[in-house]
Amino acid sequence: MSIRVPQGFSLAGVYCRIKRDPQKQDLTLVVSDRPATGVGVYTQNLVCAAPVTLDRSRTPSDRIRTVVACSGVANACTGQRGLEDARRMAHLAAAACGAEEDQALVLSTGVIGAFLPMDRIEAGIAAAARQLGSTEAHLDSAARGMLTTDTVTKLAGGTLAIGRRRFQITGMAKGAAMMGPNMATMLALLMTDAPLDPASAQEALRAAADESFNSMSVDGHMSTNDTVLLLANGAAGGPPAGKARTGGCLAGRDLDAFRRTLGEVAIDLAKAIAGDGEGATHLVTIEIAGCADRAAALAIAKTVANSPLVKTAIHGADPNWGRIISAAGYAGVPLDPAGITLRLNGHLLYRDGAPVEFDGQEVSRSIRKNRDTLVQLAFREGTAGVRFWTADLTAEYVRLNADYHT
Amino acid sequence: MSIRVPQGFSLAGVYCRIKRDPQKQDLTLVVSDRPATGVGVYTQNLVCAAPVTLDRSRTPSDRIRTVVACSGVANACTGQRGLEDARRMAHLAAAACGAEEDQALVLSTGVIGAFLPMDRIEAGIAAAARQLGSTEAHLDSAARGMLTTDTVTKLAGGTLAIGRRRFQITGMAKGAAMMGPNMATMLALLMTDAPLDPASAQEALRAAADESFNSMSVDGHMSTNDTVLLLANGAAGGPPAGKARTGGCLAGRDLDAFRRTLGEVAIDLAKAIAGDGEGATHLVTIEIAGCADRAAALAIAKTVANSPLVKTAIHGADPNWGRIISAAGYAGVPLDPAGITLRLNGHLLYRDGAPVEFDGQEVSRSIRKNRDTLVQLAFREGTAGVRFWTADLTAEYVRLNADYHT
Repeated sequence: MSIRVPQGFSLAGVYCRIKRDPQKQDLTLVVSDRPATGVGVYTQNLVCAAPVTLDRSRTPSDRIRTVVACSGVANACTGQRGLEDARRMAHLAAAACGAEEDQALVLSTGVIGAFLPMDRIEAGIAAAARQLGSTEAHLDSAARGMLTTDTVTKLAGGTLAIGRRRFQITGMAKGAAMMGPNMATMLALLMTDAPLDPASAQEALRAAADESFNSMSVDGHMSTNDTVLLLANGAAGGPPAGKARTGGCLAGRDLDAFRRTLGEVAIDLAKAIAGDGEGATHLVTIEIAGCADRAAALAIAKTVANSPLVKTAIHGADPNWGRIISAAGYAGVPLDPAGITLRLNGHLLYRDGAPVEFDGQEVSRSIRKNRDTLVQLAFREGTAGVRFWTADLTAEYVRLNADYHT
Repeated sequence: MSIRVPQGFSLAGVYCRIKRDPQKQDLTLVVSDRPATGVGVYTQNLVCAAPVTLDRSRTPSDRIRTVVACSGVANACTGQRGLEDARRMAHLAAAACGAEEDQALVLSTGVIGAFLPMDRIEAGIAAAARQLGSTEAHLDSAARGMLTTDTVTKLAGGTLAIGRRRFQITGMAKGAAMMGPNMATMLALLMTDAPLDPASAQEALRAAADESFNSMSVDGHMSTNDTVLLLANGAAGGPPAGKARTGGCLAGRDLDAFRRTLGEVAIDLAKAIAGDGEGATHLVTIEIAGCADRAAALAIAKTVANSPLVKTAIHGADPNWGRIISAAGYAGVPLDPAGITLRLNGHLLYRDGAPVEFDGQEVSRSIRKNRDTLVQLAFREGTAGVRFWTADLTAEYVRLNADYHT
C-alpha cells in the first residue's frame, strides 16, 4: 500500500478554532494545480446538510480545483443561512487558489444544528493556503483536519501502472459513529493523478462506494453529511480534465484496472472507519454467501451488523451463535432456515440449520485475543454474497455518546 | 386497573430446575375449566422456535384448555427434537388437566440452541398442576414463571361491563431484550372470561398487538420465540367456546368495547416491557403525527427508537435534537425536511425544519429527573400517526449482553 500525494495535488490541515482543542486540526484544504474531474456520492438521508446540497449541485464536474473541509460543526439543519455559509466557504477556498467559485467543493462534519464560525473559517483557509504542500506530513495533516471523534487518521493508497504511466490513488476519510450504511457521518476524499472523464469517474466511485463505505456500519444511524469525493486531475499523464471528454482518459481494460485499485483503496478506508468505531474493541468482518442476489446478502449483513445483541456478544467474546442466526432470520429476506451454516473465526458453529458441537472456550479465546473477528454465514438460496464491516458495541460507546453534545 | 384472574382460569408458577437460581420460578401452567377460544400472533422471524411452530398449527382454536410456559431455555434452533419436545410438553400439560393433547399450547423463552430438560419439565408440570389456584398470589407466581432477565413481573388488567355482565381481561408478559418490533423475545398471555368466537378473537388480538407489542422495541433484534396468546373462555357469561360460533359471543359495539379494553391492557404490558428494557433508565414514548399513513409513521418511530445515538442521548439527558431529526430523515419514508417539528418533554426544540432557541439546561433537567421521556415528532405529509415505546441504551445493557451466554 503506497500512500503518497498524487501528482498535481497539494494539501494542508490547520487549526482555526472551530474545535476547542488547539492540539487538533479542524480545517483541510486540498488543491489541484489543474482542473480535475470531480464526482461525489452523498448521504441518502432526506435531512441533508448544506455542504451536501452544494456539492451535489456542482458534481459531476470536469473543472474542480479545490476541496475545503472543516470539522467540529456539520452545518446540518441550518436552513438558508447554512447554504449561504457553505457557498461562502467554497468562494473563499476558490479565491485562495485562484479558481472560480464553482470549482470548489466543501465538506463539513461535527455537531448538527450549529452555524459555521465564518470568521474563523476565513482565517483558516488563508492559513491553509499559505501552508500547501505535497509531502507525507502535509497529507497527514490534511487527513487530521477532517476528524471528529476518530482516534486515528484514515489514509489509504494504491498505485496502478498502465503502459509507461504510473498512477497514484490516495484517499483520506473520517468517521467513527453516526455510521450506517448508505453514507453515514463519514467523509472521504479520494485523489488520483489518472485521467478520467466525469461519467467514468462517477461510475467507478459509485461502484467502489457500494462495496466499501456502503458495506460498513458502526451504529446504523445514517448521517446528514456523508460524502465521498473523487478528484482525478490526469497529472500523471493524459489530457487535462475538460479538454478531451474521453479521448485519452482511461477506458476499457485500463479503466477496469483503475476501478479495481480504487475499490481496494476505498475498502481500506471503510475498514479503517469501522475498526475505529467509537469505543470499539473489534473490527468485525461479515461474509455472506449463497444468497439469491446482492441486495438480499446486503440486507442480511446489515441486520447482523446492526444487532446490538450480536455486537455485545462479540465484545464479550461470546460465541453466541443464536443471536447471529436469529438476526439473519429477521432481515426481511426469504430464506430456508434449514440451509444456514455459520462459521466464527473459522470455527463451524451451525451447519445446515442445526447446531454442531464445538469448543466454546476455544472460540471465545480466538475472539478475545484478536481485534479482527470473522463471521461467515452461508445460505442455500443462490450464489450472491457480500463482505460487510462493523464494530462491536461497548460500554465506552455508550459513555461517549451519552456525553457528546452537552 | 383491575388485575384479578378472570373467571374459570386457574394458574401456578413453580421452580423445576431449568434456571440455576432456585429463588426464581421457571414454569407456568394456566388452565381454563372449560374449552376456550384460543388465538395467537407470532414472531415474523423465519428462524422460529419449536413452540411457535406448534402453537401456530393449533390456533385459532375453539377448544384450548391449557397453556404451559417455561423460561431459561427457548427451544429455538433445535430442529426435529425440539418440535418433539414441544409436543411432549403440550401432552404433559393436557394430561395434567384432563384435556386432549391438541387443547394445549406451549411457550418457551431463554437460551437459543439448547434442548429442553424434559424430565425437569415433566416434574414441573406435575407440581404446578397440584398448586393451581385463582388468587393474586397464584397470578403473581404464574407471571414470574415466564421471566428471564426481567427485573419486574409484567401484569395488566382491565374490566368491561356489557349489560349485566362484567368481563375481566388479564394479561401477563415477559421481555427485556432481543426486543424488536414484530414480536420480539416477548411472551404474553392474555386471558378473559368474555365469550369470543375465534375469528373475532384473532382480529381483536392482531389489532391490539399492532398498537402495543408491535409498537415497542428495546434493541430492535427480533426474537425467534415471540408469541402473544389470547384465551377467551366465556366463563363470565356467554356460550361455551365451540358451542355457538358467534351466537352469544361478543359482537358489534360490545366487541368494539372489548377490543378497546384489550388494547389498553396490551399497551400496559408493552410499556412495562419497554420500561424494563435491559439496563434501561428511561421509558421513551415516541409520538409521531402528520404522516401520510400509519406505515410511514411506524417506520419513522422505529428508526428513531432503534438509533443507538438517540438512545444514548436520552440516557445522557442530552437534548441532542440533531440525532432525532436525522434519524427521521433516513427512515425510508418520503418527507419534506422543512415540515418537521420536534418537542422533547413538551419543550419545542425544532419547528418547521429549523432549530429554535431553547434552554438546554432545563430540557436536560427534565430528562434527568423523569423516568418517562416523551419525544413528539410532527410532519406535514398527512394525518396519520402512531405511539411507540422504547428504552434508552446504557452501559449496563452492554454489560448484561456481553456476559449473558457464557
